[in-house]
Amino acid sequence: MRSIQLTAFGLENLHAVDLPAPQPGPNEVRVRMEAASLNYRDYLLVSGKLYRGVHLPIVPVSDGAGIVVDVGSAVTRFKPGDRVTTFYKSRWLAGAMRPEWEGAEIGGPYDGVMRELACFDAYSLARAPAHLSSAQSATLPIAALTAWQTLEQARVTTGHTVLVLGTGGVSLFALQFAKLRGARVIVLSSSDEKLARAKALGADIGINYANNPLWGAAVREASGGLGVDAVVETVGPSTLAQSLEAVRMHGFIGLVGFMSGTEATFSLTQAILKRVQIQGISVASLETHEQMIQAIEATRLEPVLDTVFGFGQLREAFDHLVAAKHFGKIGIDFNA
Amino acid sequence: MRSIQLTAFGLENLHAVDLPAPQPGPNEVRVRMEAASLNYRDYLLVSGKLYRGVHLPIVPVSDGAGIVVDVGSAVTRFKPGDRVTTFYKSRWLAGAMRPEWEGAEIGGPYDGVMRELACFDAYSLARAPAHLSSAQSATLPIAALTAWQTLEQARVTTGHTVLVLGTGGVSLFALQFAKLRGARVIVLSSSDEKLARAKALGADIGINYANNPLWGAAVREASGGLGVDAVVETVGPSTLAQSLEAVRMHGFIGLVGFMSGTEATFSLTQAILKRVQIQGISVASLETHEQMIQAIEATRLEPVLDTVFGFGQLREAFDHLVAAKHFGKIGIDFNA
Amino acid sequence: MRSIQLTAFGLENLHAVDLPAPQPGPNEVRVRMEAASLNYRDYLLVSGKLYRGVHLPIVPVSDGAGIVVDVGSAVTRFKPGDRVTTFYKSRWLAGAMRPEWEGAEIGGPYDGVMRELACFDAYSLARAPAHLSSAQSATLPIAALTAWQTLEQARVTTGHTVLVLGTGGVSLFALQFAKLRGARVIVLSSSDEKLARAKALGADIGINYANNPLWGAAVREASGGLGVDAVVETVGPSTLAQSLEAVRMHGFIGLVGFMSGTEATFSLTQAILKRVQIQGISVASLETHEQMIQAIEATRLEPVLDTVFGFGQLREAFDHLVAAKHFGKIGIDFNA
Amino acid sequence: MRSIQLTAFGLENLHAVDLPAPQPGPNEVRVRMEAASLNYRDYLLVSGKLYRGVHLPIVPVSDGAGIVVDVGSAVTRFKPGDRVTTFYKSRWLAGAMRPEWEGAEIGGPYDGVMRELACFDAYSLARAPAHLSSAQSATLPIAALTAWQTLEQARVTTGHTVLVLGTGGVSLFALQFAKLRGARVIVLSSSDEKLARAKALGADIGINYANNPLWGAAVREASGGLGVDAVVETVGPSTLAQSLEAVRMHGFIGLVGFMSGTEATFSLTQAILKRVQIQGISVASLETHEQMIQAIEATRLEPVLDTVFGFGQLREAFDHLVAAKHFGKIGIDFNA
Repeated sequence: MRSIQLTAFGLENLHAVDLPAPQPGPNEVRVRMEAASLNYRDYLLVSGKLYRGVHLPIVPVSDGAGIVVDVGSAVTRFKPGDRVTTFYKSRWLAGAMRPEWEGAEIGGPYDGVMRELACFDAYSLARAPAHLSSAQSATLPIAALTAWQTLEQARVTTGHTVLVLGTGGVSLFALQFAKLRGARVIVLSSSDEKLARAKALGADIGINYANNPLWGAAVREASGGLGVDAVVETVGPSTLAQSLEAVRMHGFIGLVGFMSGTEATFSLTQAILKRVQIQGISVASLETHEQMIQAIEATRLEPVLDTVFGFGQLREAFDHLVAAKHFGKIGIDFNA
Repeated sequence: MRSIQLTAFGLENLHAVDLPAPQPGPNEVRVRMEAASLNYRDYLLVSGKLYRGVHLPIVPVSDGAGIVVDVGSAVTRFKPGDRVTTFYKSRWLAGAMRPEWEGAEIGGPYDGVMRELACFDAYSLARAPAHLSSAQSATLPIAALTAWQTLEQARVTTGHTVLVLGTGGVSLFALQFAKLRGARVIVLSSSDEKLARAKALGADIGINYANNPLWGAAVREASGGLGVDAVVETVGPSTLAQSLEAVRMHGFIGLVGFMSGTEATFSLTQAILKRVQIQGISVASLETHEQMIQAIEATRLEPVLDTVFGFGQLREAFDHLVAAKHFGKIGIDFNA
Repeated sequence: MRSIQLTAFGLENLHAVDLPAPQPGPNEVRVRMEAASLNYRDYLLVSGKLYRGVHLPIVPVSDGAGIVVDVGSAVTRFKPGDRVTTFYKSRWLAGAMRPEWEGAEIGGPYDGVMRELACFDAYSLARAPAHLSSAQSATLPIAALTAWQTLEQARVTTGHTVLVLGTGGVSLFALQFAKLRGARVIVLSSSDEKLARAKALGADIGINYANNPLWGAAVREASGGLGVDAVVETVGPSTLAQSLEAVRMHGFIGLVGFMSGTEATFSLTQAILKRVQIQGISVASLETHEQMIQAIEATRLEPVLDTVFGFGQLREAFDHLVAAKHFGKIGIDFNA
Repeated sequence: MRSIQLTAFGLENLHAVDLPAPQPGPNEVRVRMEAASLNYRDYLLVSGKLYRGVHLPIVPVSDGAGIVVDVGSAVTRFKPGDRVTTFYKSRWLAGAMRPEWEGAEIGGPYDGVMRELACFDAYSLARAPAHLSSAQSATLPIAALTAWQTLEQARVTTGHTVLVLGTGGVSLFALQFAKLRGARVIVLSSSDEKLARAKALGADIGINYANNPLWGAAVREASGGLGVDAVVETVGPSTLAQSLEAVRMHGFIGLVGFMSGTEATFSLTQAILKRVQIQGISVASLETHEQMIQAIEATRLEPVLDTVFGFGQLREAFDHLVAAKHFGKIGIDFNA
């Protein structure tokens, strides 16, 4: 069957290969993959910048969606024809993460989704929202779930104000989910054009930080003076101090990304005096993933796809990701 | 100043009287009342069916709205011209109710809102939503807050399904608030016409229980088979058993009314096996009231007013309430 | 291997049989059973009063403990020699119960623990506390976990007051766990002798209800006048009304048993005005079970065993259970 | 009446003065002060290192305890003879802090407790535990409440492991409260003698970090390998990185002090991958203060007093605080 393998670290080492079709075990489901979606994690792995312990060759890319072909003898959760998404933390069913599950990740160390057929444990798949294409559903497992979990832990509800930084995949999902909850959303970007697009998606206020490195006060003012209830902190070291300026007393800062570095400095006194919750977030369990999908289906939310590449264009898709000009998610449509 | 007093229990004992204008103490705010809204509590008190310990004569009706005239020397929260709503649990500022605050209720035992001018502690008023008239704002303190608190305690969020019983004030607010949170709403009524109006307000599904006393199974089916996440139980003894049928595993039943009696029987085994939370709810604190108002303002929610009577028509308004044909809240506009 | 089977409903149909030794599958663990503990559920099943859909013959009894003999090829959680307890909701790993897991119960419909060797999925076992014998550990899965989950959901902590009804297994565990959390405990019993024993276990106050059917007020008074923070409601219809009298404003009633019947009547107005949470509880997930075991081990809690019978005395053990004179748990020691 | 005033910033400007006795307003309580307790905040204010905006002269010191002399006409909460503690966030009754309440602090900007008689709003006092002397009760409002609130927000319960840094007032209260909840406690200190004293108070494990700047791994190992459930972070910049090493997946770090500086740097990736909650904590509301006092009274907890000075020895008491050799709280006994 058609597949892509990484034979050595480096984007240049992604190769189209023909692999034998896998057979499902008794608790497994065999899926005809129809689409994938890129996360920054995929780039870090393929380029060898992180996850170097991964054993090569490997089928790359964590997030995908497809159609159930057949199921193992013990599987009752799915039947042939069901549309599904993958779930990259393949053993995190519910509750707290356990050390023995942390490394069980689809897309490295386990083989990823860039293949025609793949077998997954029935509890590492979720039913896809009925109204979405596979390319749309493939955007959900990491980016959407990270955004959803942040709003969950922040308990964002009607009347709250949420700040999102930039217009990447997680930020736009956070924007959309926050609007579904009846919250107001402030988006920060250095591009007026992207701010306009964010507003078209429902953002209430756009702030261009290009000319305002101390944007925290501007956000606080835009939220009515007290500060925002929650910040979806996708950037890290270069923004955390201003996020702390922007957040309200008893507010919430969800640490979800480290685009600008891995060490962050913040004002301890400000965090204490404001009684802020700074919460590390790294996706969530399958149970939460399914709750999110139920919400997406009930509200007919449409994920924002930037560009959708073909199965043979994975290298181009990664180049587009690294260029960091995208608005929303980058997809791969296996049938394109 | 113009006022209405209850001189003895019974609707026939509501009299227009001229009372001296009150003067605000240092922590008080003087309000020119512009509107009131009726709750069933007001009827029970005026008719003497409950609250007989209340000392007469009394100015009736708990919920009102108006404009600040002047403020006491220690008040910084409000200034003349601010639009405000009353808050009938006048001392419940935040946190848990305390026994010493429970009885401090506007509209009995304390004088209510049917008067031209009234003084209230600054922390027993809340700023009214800017987009609402006083008649609309007057609907918020009891009915809306009860609905809001139910959804809060149930943690209703996007993708959940909420069941509301009937189309009274609390039920319609619950419907509207649930939609703002991205939830699906099932409304139960014996009137197809009211179901149609509820759908116009956003309800996803209407179920006429007139021909189906065992409506619990129908609700469960309409929610996808597993049952609803939350029930806003405004009725009581005659519905609780079916509410328990309708609710999902780990679901929530908010007990907020006792229209059909004060003693209820339910299946203990069902409550245990479903792990249901049955939660008594009786309004909430001022802090929650203010959060709700912030949400109403941010989303520009419009309360549903059934009929608005004039200041001199309180008796007619009560008759309308008792007839129980209304859809939404019954208002009194002091300037009509 | 030595085993007990129920061949038809009725205590008289428990028979010693020789069954073939089971072989563990790849995800399974083979355990040499050393002890069991009886729950009322076991009696209801064996006597055919409930669970009649269970397929016979069956090996009875849900709760047991033993030593790992060997493990399947995919198991890393356990190794030979580990002491373990069973977990009767064998598929409820964490998070919310799912319908497809509800019926996967050890001790009916699945075979129970009255056998020399048994194979279980690695995630339906938990490490036993190091300081306990197998007879002691066998008391934990249902009775202790029900008590623990009740205190968890009630968020019982230092300074709270907890009411337990009677001195059965769940009640005594609730007493012991509440004391570990720094709470005060009031025990209700009709036997002064049992109250004395409960006090020896740490209970602060014992109330004999034999002469006081309206004991709710006595409990409220004993708790300082405001009422208890939490009631562990193991009895049901005959006590719920007084439990509601006994509980404080914003208090918690955990419905965990139905010893006195399956339909309960309560004062809706009281539940509403007190804002009480009435919570159905039916054990908890393996994750919670493991947290409880960690707590038991850290605090060296000793379960209260009433009488320990031998493997061949199951019928006598059930007779003792039904006589309802026991104080704490009834055990079966396979090596006695 | 006898009093101490700060006339200019600097310890040398604390003067004994005779002030007129205050008269209680209608909502106030007049208290004969019997004891005070020092917090680092008092030193920062008196020395002028922080809080320079405070208007001088001022009566210093935030925390005190005494006996009610008489009460205002509207006060029902207290009566003459009641033993009380002060509450320095004098307007924070319950719920979330409000901006307008933040600055209403006893001991600056409001006059503090170093005076024979003082009047306080009835809701800025709490009943003192019956079993404690005034010198003991005076330790509670800031130090104990900070420790209590940290364990509350961390939801510390039986079986958890808590790390406390050093043996100051907050750390020892955290140790004692954690033990009452059935948790294990690890104490970090550079003094073996202090570790021995901490163990005598109930600490399970003492770790001397003097020879081990990378103590995080040692703590993790001592907690069974997974890391501690909660860290009471009283130190700040110099310890936060190791606290993050020491804490478990999904763990909690309560930021409560900034003894080593006001800016902190931490590993963002570690916080994210461990899904840690880093929570700023600055005391709590009166409602929580009262819950803590109820717990202290129920468990007869004894605060740890290091040295108790006389009313005229405030300067010596501050010198002792600054020397930072104390173990537990520094008290002032007005009757000594």
